[in-house]
Amino acid sequence: MGFLRHIEACNRFDPDQFLPFYIGGVQVGSIPRAESTVLGDYPGTFRLAEQFVSLSESLGTAASRTAAIGAAGEDLVRRGVLPGRRGELFAITAGWGGDVLVEIDRGVVPFFGTRSYGVHLNGFRGGSDRQELWIGKRAADKKTAPGKLDNLVAGGIASGYGAHATLLKEAAEEASMPADIAATARPAGAVFYRMGLPHGSRNDVLFIYDIDVPADFVPRNSDGEIEDFRVLAVDDCLRRVAETDDFKFNVNLVLIDLALRHGYIAPDHPDYLPLVAGLRRGG
Amino acid sequence: MGFLRHIEACNRFDPDQFLPFYIGGVQVGSIPRAESTVLGDYPGTFRLAEQFVSLSESLGTAASRTAAIGAAGEDLVRRGVLPGRRGELFAITAGWGGDVLVEIDRGVVPFFGTRSYGVHLNGFRGGSDRQELWIGKRAADKKTAPGKLDNLVAGGIASGYGAHATLLKEAAEEASMPADIAATARPAGAVFYRMGLPHGSRNDVLFIYDIDVPADFVPRNSDGEIEDFRVLAVDDCLRRVAETDDFKFNVNLVLIDLALRHGYIAPDHPDYLPLVAGLRRGG
Repeated sequence: MGFLRHIEACNRFDPDQFLPFYIGGVQVGSIPRAESTVLGDYPGTFRLAEQFVSLSESLGTAASRTAAIGAAGEDLVRRGVLPGRRGELFAITAGWGGDVLVEIDRGVVPFFGTRSYGVHLNGFRGGSDRQELWIGKRAADKKTAPGKLDNLVAGGIASGYGAHATLLKEAAEEASMPADIAATARPAGAVFYRMGLPHGSRNDVLFIYDIDVPADFVPRNSDGEIEDFRVLAVDDCLRRVAETDDFKFNVNLVLIDLALRHGYIAPDHPDYLPLVAGLRRGG
Repeated sequence: MGFLRHIEACNRFDPDQFLPFYIGGVQVGSIPRAESTVLGDYPGTFRLAEQFVSLSESLGTAASRTAAIGAAGEDLVRRGVLPGRRGELFAITAGWGGDVLVEIDRGVVPFFGTRSYGVHLNGFRGGSDRQELWIGKRAADKKTAPGKLDNLVAGGIASGYGAHATLLKEAAEEASMPADIAATARPAGAVFYRMGLPHGSRNDVLFIYDIDVPADFVPRNSDGEIEDFRVLAVDDCLRRVAETDDFKFNVNLVLIDLALRHGYIAPDHPDYLPLVAGLRRGG
């Protein structure tokens, strides 16, 4: 119980279980050590050393790297080694805003453990004085966290999109939010976490936005990803974060961040500083 | 120029120049290696080893430690080794909210490099839609950062006070803020930094509060620490943070944090993530 357990769960990562993954001398990811040997089947694409994996140095351009990893990834999916591709490319860079080194399908990103970026929008219901939030319930057929509660809008940043552009796109698709309302969202920081998974890891940055939506705005999902939306008091959300696993694992971090920024958690909380710092671990 | 330089300046700390300082097996500070030998003159109080300094194990209570360090500190000030004491005790704990291990005079805290805690209040001028801030100018005779710009209210947390109690006390003393207004301040997080000084270091946590003060409230200093207060647009404050050293060194961090939380700096800023993470370095 409590807030800190979510930060701990999202930062459970044992470096000894992974090999660093390099492109052009820059570490861009972490590959599960036990499953890395399969990459030896693609000697033109990967170089396997004892303590690291790197992309073949002969692949000198983003386009050639993307094609090579794409082909290897497709083959690994066909062989049942990797889960299905998602048909959405994520850009791998040496850092947020940096040059694109390669684009990787979202479905195989966890295997390579490259850093992913997403946006999350806290939707305060208008007139509630920031005491109530619009909360989505994820569809039962979502691959990740089906049926869990979620922010009003959230989504991964695909290659070629910035944070703000992703927010506007997802606000329209996920919540049917008119562009003039979505334009009033304001950035409010970011949270970081890195967590080991059964066949890979997540190394995520979530860009946080807040919005006060008009009282007469009612979100309506148009892409099938959200089953319904409901209004919950912030206090109720935080009680659920502390006492339940109702929310998707990383949405707990977004709500803890909201609680810290908006004074719902105060310095007299015994975990105040571990919470503040824990949201940026690995940053 | 830019925001990141302030975070770098506040985190310039070379561990090789310091010896860890232990109390009862817990590291509570860092003592400048070159100046640590002077503690050998107080063998009943300190134990000097090659790679650390510890408080004598015979000092088993907070009261006995406080008395022993107080006497040594007084002697070191008399000998001109340490700067003057301030007559204000800071509590040294194993962590925020933890048991008090010893109380140390504020003036000698930097020598021991123990963690200090402070509060900083961002005062948004009422009716400005959070576009304007009340900013103090520090008195010319302040020991630290004379003449520099400061938050509406700021102060160190003395032993026996919590963050909120310190905020209320300082709001009255520094800005003559009525208690009913001060009570509307809301906590908004914390920033961390650790910086080497000529004869010690600062290992600081600043608890951040925001307040929207009524439009007709005009702060008035009553303790001589602030020369005057003026209203500055947030944009002007941030321009000064980026381009000048008008603000006290650590107030730059508080304003960068404000800019991140309130959307004045957006994810398309090239240093966005280093800024978000940099404010919690050492947390």
